[in-house]
Amino acid sequence: MHTNLLSNKLLPKVLAFDVFGTVVDWHGSIAAEVARLKIPVDPNVFASAWRNGYKPAMARVRSGELGWTKIDDLHRLILDQVLDQFSIHSLNEAQKVDLNLVWHRLQPWSDSVEGLCKLKQHFTIVTLSNGNLSLLANMAKNAGLPWDLILSAEVFRHYKPDPETYLGVAATFDVKPGEVMLVAAHKDDLVAAHALGLQTAFIERPKEFGPTHQRDDMHREDWVDYHASDFKDLAKQLSL
Amino acid sequence: MHTNLLSNKLLPKVLAFDVFGTVVDWHGSIAAEVARLKIPVDPNVFASAWRNGYKPAMARVRSGELGWTKIDDLHRLILDQVLDQFSIHSLNEAQKVDLNLVWHRLQPWSDSVEGLCKLKQHFTIVTLSNGNLSLLANMAKNAGLPWDLILSAEVFRHYKPDPETYLGVAATFDVKPGEVMLVAAHKDDLVAAHALGLQTAFIERPKEFGPTHQRDDMHREDWVDYHASDFKDLAKQLSL
Repeated sequence: MHTNLLSNKLLPKVLAFDVFGTVVDWHGSIAAEVARLKIPVDPNVFASAWRNGYKPAMARVRSGELGWTKIDDLHRLILDQVLDQFSIHSLNEAQKVDLNLVWHRLQPWSDSVEGLCKLKQHFTIVTLSNGNLSLLANMAKNAGLPWDLILSAEVFRHYKPDPETYLGVAATFDVKPGEVMLVAAHKDDLVAAHALGLQTAFIERPKEFGPTHQRDDMHREDWVDYHASDFKDLAKQLSL
Repeated sequence: MHTNLLSNKLLPKVLAFDVFGTVVDWHGSIAAEVARLKIPVDPNVFASAWRNGYKPAMARVRSGELGWTKIDDLHRLILDQVLDQFSIHSLNEAQKVDLNLVWHRLQPWSDSVEGLCKLKQHFTIVTLSNGNLSLLANMAKNAGLPWDLILSAEVFRHYKPDPETYLGVAATFDVKPGEVMLVAAHKDDLVAAHALGLQTAFIERPKEFGPTHQRDDMHREDWVDYHASDFKDLAKQLSL
């Protein structure tokens, strides 16, 4: 086991990354594609409305009300509701199918690829996302994300924050939970990982929810192991 | 859908690769590590004996006699038997653990990385291996294998040739079985995939079972879609 020379903490072996918002800019990517469609709706409002349906949809799967349903299919259910909500009837089926796949084409934050490449030299870097495998694979191919392994709720048949997901990463690599670090821009995700003994890193993504939205949860928490402005900063704090 | 200009066949969207023997040289890699251990056994005989335990061990899982057990653990069970068979008692536990991980360090055939990089430009390239996820991830990191997605029996909780594995690739990518092509050096694997409607490519790996072993199954089969000498030849036949 190696220790961090700066902090004297035990270094993790596996870094598991949340993806939507942490690695890629879902709000900006969706708003940009919606703007190109020239439909009568504010692209930022549309992006937020689509994403707002995400947790309630997963909650239906987590509670057992819905059987296992992958995010592509949940995204489509929500998309149909949002199009209805904004009275948009001009898209044909092929256009809706294509728009739903915008989640496979989300663009990384400007530091993501360089930061991940640096971290990959010293750690095993994996996704731990509620996105399905094909979504994450297409995104990685499109954006050049250099994952060592793509892990997804789809592998564990449980959505975060179910414990099976965080502990599943450790079991996959035959390591202890404390040898895995969750890297995420969302504190609820980190809270769940921390409670199970994983290490945690919070990444500031102030523009995750759009250019005008002000996040009020950017402060440093005592229980978080690393607090970084981006992936390059995280690599620096890990003494790389 | 794109068609192959040379053969006028419909091109697959996803290429799913068998790994042991097809992408990496398990026999040569294991024999080389065993030779370095300086234990009193012919390294080629040892490599063959270890691999010979593989199908019977998986058969115990496939039949339900054993619950789900990943290949790392099956490899260790077989290793202990083989060490016993050859009366080798000189390895301590740490050495056995390390030797068992040789499967994570298998070396690619000389054409593998270049051929995969070429194929990746035009297709989604994934593994479909009985190896567990961490084994395949460590192997890819070590050998530079550029997978778009690592799929494993561990994801489907079924070993090949169970249908859940081949059909699982198609379901993961929301494509028809005929839009997936299994690429393998073993005809039993291809027979199972073909029966389920997948396309098939046979790769000649004459030295898979060691430098002195003569394979008698290298001939072209009518039902196989592509028969290639290596991955670069496959890329050429797919008109890339």
